[in-house]
Amino acid sequence: MKALVLHGPLDLRWEERPLPEPQMGEALVRITAVGICGSDLHYYRHGRIGRFVVEKPLILGHECAGEVVEVAGPAAGNIKPGRRVALEPGIPCWSCPECRTGQYNLCRSVRFFATPPIDGVFCEYVAHPVNLLYPLPDQVGEEEGALLEPLSVAVQACRKAAVPPGGSALVSGAGPIGLVTMLVLIASGASRVFVTEPYSFRRRLAAKLGGYPLDPFSTEGDILDVINDLTKGRGVDAAIECAGNAAALAACLRATKPGGRVVVVGLGESIPQVPMQEVIDKELGVFGVFRYANTYEQALELVCSGRVDVKPLVTHRFPFADAIAAMQQAATGGEERMKTLILMPKY
Amino acid sequence: MKALVLHGPLDLRWEERPLPEPQMGEALVRITAVGICGSDLHYYRHGRIGRFVVEKPLILGHECAGEVVEVAGPAAGNIKPGRRVALEPGIPCWSCPECRTGQYNLCRSVRFFATPPIDGVFCEYVAHPVNLLYPLPDQVGEEEGALLEPLSVAVQACRKAAVPPGGSALVSGAGPIGLVTMLVLIASGASRVFVTEPYSFRRRLAAKLGGYPLDPFSTEGDILDVINDLTKGRGVDAAIECAGNAAALAACLRATKPGGRVVVVGLGESIPQVPMQEVIDKELGVFGVFRYANTYEQALELVCSGRVDVKPLVTHRFPFADAIAAMQQAATGGEERMKTLILMPKY
Amino acid sequence: MKALVLHGPLDLRWEERPLPEPQMGEALVRITAVGICGSDLHYYRHGRIGRFVVEKPLILGHECAGEVVEVAGPAAGNIKPGRRVALEPGIPCWSCPECRTGQYNLCRSVRFFATPPIDGVFCEYVAHPVNLLYPLPDQVGEEEGALLEPLSVAVQACRKAAVPPGGSALVSGAGPIGLVTMLVLIASGASRVFVTEPYSFRRRLAAKLGGYPLDPFSTEGDILDVINDLTKGRGVDAAIECAGNAAALAACLRATKPGGRVVVVGLGESIPQVPMQEVIDKELGVFGVFRYANTYEQALELVCSGRVDVKPLVTHRFPFADAIAAMQQAATGGEERMKTLILMPKY
Amino acid sequence: MKALVLHGPLDLRWEERPLPEPQMGEALVRITAVGICGSDLHYYRHGRIGRFVVEKPLILGHECAGEVVEVAGPAAGNIKPGRRVALEPGIPCWSCPECRTGQYNLCRSVRFFATPPIDGVFCEYVAHPVNLLYPLPDQVGEEEGALLEPLSVAVQACRKAAVPPGGSALVSGAGPIGLVTMLVLIASGASRVFVTEPYSFRRRLAAKLGGYPLDPFSTEGDILDVINDLTKGRGVDAAIECAGNAAALAACLRATKPGGRVVVVGLGESIPQVPMQEVIDKELGVFGVFRYANTYEQALELVCSGRVDVKPLVTHRFPFADAIAAMQQAATGGEERMKTLILMPKY
Repeated sequence: MKALVLHGPLDLRWEERPLPEPQMGEALVRITAVGICGSDLHYYRHGRIGRFVVEKPLILGHECAGEVVEVAGPAAGNIKPGRRVALEPGIPCWSCPECRTGQYNLCRSVRFFATPPIDGVFCEYVAHPVNLLYPLPDQVGEEEGALLEPLSVAVQACRKAAVPPGGSALVSGAGPIGLVTMLVLIASGASRVFVTEPYSFRRRLAAKLGGYPLDPFSTEGDILDVINDLTKGRGVDAAIECAGNAAALAACLRATKPGGRVVVVGLGESIPQVPMQEVIDKELGVFGVFRYANTYEQALELVCSGRVDVKPLVTHRFPFADAIAAMQQAATGGEERMKTLILMPKY
Repeated sequence: MKALVLHGPLDLRWEERPLPEPQMGEALVRITAVGICGSDLHYYRHGRIGRFVVEKPLILGHECAGEVVEVAGPAAGNIKPGRRVALEPGIPCWSCPECRTGQYNLCRSVRFFATPPIDGVFCEYVAHPVNLLYPLPDQVGEEEGALLEPLSVAVQACRKAAVPPGGSALVSGAGPIGLVTMLVLIASGASRVFVTEPYSFRRRLAAKLGGYPLDPFSTEGDILDVINDLTKGRGVDAAIECAGNAAALAACLRATKPGGRVVVVGLGESIPQVPMQEVIDKELGVFGVFRYANTYEQALELVCSGRVDVKPLVTHRFPFADAIAAMQQAATGGEERMKTLILMPKY
Repeated sequence: MKALVLHGPLDLRWEERPLPEPQMGEALVRITAVGICGSDLHYYRHGRIGRFVVEKPLILGHECAGEVVEVAGPAAGNIKPGRRVALEPGIPCWSCPECRTGQYNLCRSVRFFATPPIDGVFCEYVAHPVNLLYPLPDQVGEEEGALLEPLSVAVQACRKAAVPPGGSALVSGAGPIGLVTMLVLIASGASRVFVTEPYSFRRRLAAKLGGYPLDPFSTEGDILDVINDLTKGRGVDAAIECAGNAAALAACLRATKPGGRVVVVGLGESIPQVPMQEVIDKELGVFGVFRYANTYEQALELVCSGRVDVKPLVTHRFPFADAIAAMQQAATGGEERMKTLILMPKY
Repeated sequence: MKALVLHGPLDLRWEERPLPEPQMGEALVRITAVGICGSDLHYYRHGRIGRFVVEKPLILGHECAGEVVEVAGPAAGNIKPGRRVALEPGIPCWSCPECRTGQYNLCRSVRFFATPPIDGVFCEYVAHPVNLLYPLPDQVGEEEGALLEPLSVAVQACRKAAVPPGGSALVSGAGPIGLVTMLVLIASGASRVFVTEPYSFRRRLAAKLGGYPLDPFSTEGDILDVINDLTKGRGVDAAIECAGNAAALAACLRATKPGGRVVVVGLGESIPQVPMQEVIDKELGVFGVFRYANTYEQALELVCSGRVDVKPLVTHRFPFADAIAAMQQAATGGEERMKTLILMPKY
């Protein structure tokens, strides 16, 4: 099968790889759509993300949907040939203390698509455990199936934020993760979701999808003043940091009400300066997010029921044959890009 | 001032009462709208509810909105003459362990409108603590202000149910409390809310407002089968019992998924038979609801933001002068009644 | 190997069974100690427990420790031949929603020792997954290893009870489960643990181990009065029902403070009468317990660190050869029995 | 009455002040014991703590016990003349959203002893609300009564840490707060509590009271290696930072297991560098502690029941007449000091 392989920074090559063979409990899945994630671009540009280093050729891509070709072993419920599915990209051990307590995203033995040395899905086929495949009902397309992955991050973050219906929240950063997080908050009944974002294209999209955009670099006034004015001087119930920089994290801590929660999804520096005085004086709870666990079904339900519409996030689509161009455009493209999808040819 | 006073079962009389004098920290409020609650009707018919007995003449009514006439003591934030407000009907001691831990609904010294021997608000004026008055913004009318009270019960119940966005729920009973509970669940992102109700008028209203109505006495099939079919055989994430009978409670326990929650709002018999085997085998959590605490601001926010529209629940309106007729109609009226409001004359 | 097999009520027979062959990921374990549980006795007497019916010959026993003989597949951490271990008796699927969310005790496909049609461990050897074996350090004997099973039930119950250090609790029933629950509560810092129990032998043992025993049938006064007197009129923080009867459950609900928790471990009738008025008026949370999940390591830690001493619960010991006599004694023996252990011959 | 008044850094003066007059709902209390807290010393040395500045003469002291002299208004339960009591030092408004939800420590209007401009209790008498007085039973002395204040901080921190019985924890810093935190963790059933502390006197005291002391500056090996060795490579269930420096906070984050909690009590710099990568990669929850709410009864119960013994922390005692010397000794004394108490003359 054809696969797009990263050999080093900016060095993507088409290669022929053997068709994977599903083991017992796995299915062979033909990939139909893959999103380009910020982490894919980071590996593409730099060849590493923190402690994860691309040391041998790696297939990128982990936001994906596909179609079941074959199941090894007994048919598993709904998973059978022809079934359209979303693929949850991390395979945990199901045995360690983290897996047993429902935090399988923290499994130290997890094998996650496109995280060195595990290959991802910028390729035609993958063998994947059937219990990590989620059948897509007719009304959910392959593009939305692929976008269940970033939506899962949002679900994980929103669980920790625990914004009550009618509550208020701040999302810092209106990239794909910030926007899906905003959408989940709105679907959960938040009555006002502030979104801080320097790029005007992204702010406009946030506003169009129901958020209350704020420019952190505006010369017209401090965003904390705006937030305080609109929350009766209390601050937001929770803030979710999706921008990955220290200033955004500080703003989240400052904007949150006493006893509120701050959820940290984006990471910029690994040891930033953090206004801990805010954490103590207001007894904030600060929660990290690392991928997700037990979110796919919920994310799918949000899409199926129409509670969340992820389609407006897709600004660019490329056929698989043009995947290198897609990566180049995504890596260098201007601020008018949100989510790029790679679509496989139909049969 | 004029007051409608209950002297015994079915014995309501108009009386002249002295204008209340607000003490320090209180406001004098002119009542503008009062809802008739099931508990008002119960006192009206039977002269008691469980351990609460009408032993001396009692003014009924506790779901209310009004207009501030005068504030005793220093002006308190937004509470000033002319301000339209909703009144939270229970005055706790703010000092006992329950009050200090945020569960002031469980305060043993609470003084609650229309709960013997405390008078309610079927009258022209009341003196009430300013910190239990909630200013209504322009877009929220006095009718909605009065309905924040039942909406508060729903908010309390839904907090305990903790249905995730995209989740499923069962509400048993489509009376006013069942319906506002359903509305809050939908506002919180529940993707499917089943509502069991024998009366077809109520089922139609539930359906119109976004619920999935089921007739518990239908001869076409068991409601549990329907619920199982539509929840992939798992059962609902949570069930909220608002019907007040043992069969409904049993259905709630049976319909809820393993590890799920059942919230009990309605009470019929005080010692019903309960299928505890369900509670054990599925490790359910069962939570009682007694009024509410810290819900008014959230309920108001849900209404202000348009997340919840309570107006469709109002089926009957009477001027204050016809309050006796209103009570009679509500007590004897057919099944096409949902919420009756008593409206005071405008000045 | 030798096995003790139940063929019907009161019909236990010695049989020769083939030595189990461990599959990949399993170990062959030589059993060294097995406790007799109330459920074993129930199957022995009645041939069934609720929906679980002994339809073909069944080996009883699920509270056990042993010694690893052989591991199939790669050595798994500490699990190697000669290692003394406790065996967690339920094998879940690790794949269903319950397993993935850390509630593997609610797995519908769980295979649990001595629950029809799965054989238990009144036999010489068993093959069991290595990830359900817990190595016993030198200071923990095989008897304590076997008792980690009932201790696990206590840990599960105490997690749900959430009694704070310095808090108060009621345990109803001072059988083995009631007593280990009491021990875990005391180890968790509870300052007073009331234990209701009609048998004086059991009350004396409860007192000796640190509890505050109460006779529910005492003619000297109501136990609720005693509890109220000693909790400043508030009631206990939580109550844990381990007696399995409706009167005990009702007492638990009545004895618990507003906003408190009641945990139900014992089940008598499947549909008892329950004073739900208490649940509503005090907004209690009522939680069922079904076995346990993720408790073995914690139970072992409690024993290792000396926080909990389970040995005083063992009142009877029998060699494996006398296992039928042990069952008969346990089934018919008087009230001076607490926990009976079957001990295998040493080699 | 006599009062010790701070006029500026290092400038303490004896002054005569009028006897306070209790208002309705308050009691006049004769102070019998006051602890010297790190914050008292900080005001004494620097005249300020962050945003709190001593701008006019201030009486220090907030850890205190006393004896009721007189109650204004109706007798309030147990609070009557002659009663020995501990005084909870912060008077919240009981009306704001924080107070109503049980987080009254976050009340913006709280009046807290010895926090400018509110006077403390280095004086003979104080008028204080009866509902913030906690009667001491006979077995609890005035010294322990005064120490309920730091013990309350520990209770607040341990609630957020949520270490399970049998679990492990790290406390950084073995000053008075670190040690009482360690004592509460041990009382809660923690099987191993590591305590990092550079001073050997403090480490020895920690060890004597049941902790596992570690020297963060030891040249014999990294404390994280020791913690990992003794927690099966997982890390502690929770860490509580009581040292108030960035390095200690970083160690807490590094030592905590995936999914664990870090509680921050001590604050050094207001904007330290924090290894947020740990928070994200392990999905830690980080919780600030600001004083306490609803802890006094629990702290008293821990002392009454013998679960926690705070007396070994008292290393120095001074009569009230020597309070200036006490402050000087505490401010300049060597590392062999833990808690200094000022004791009033007996009558």
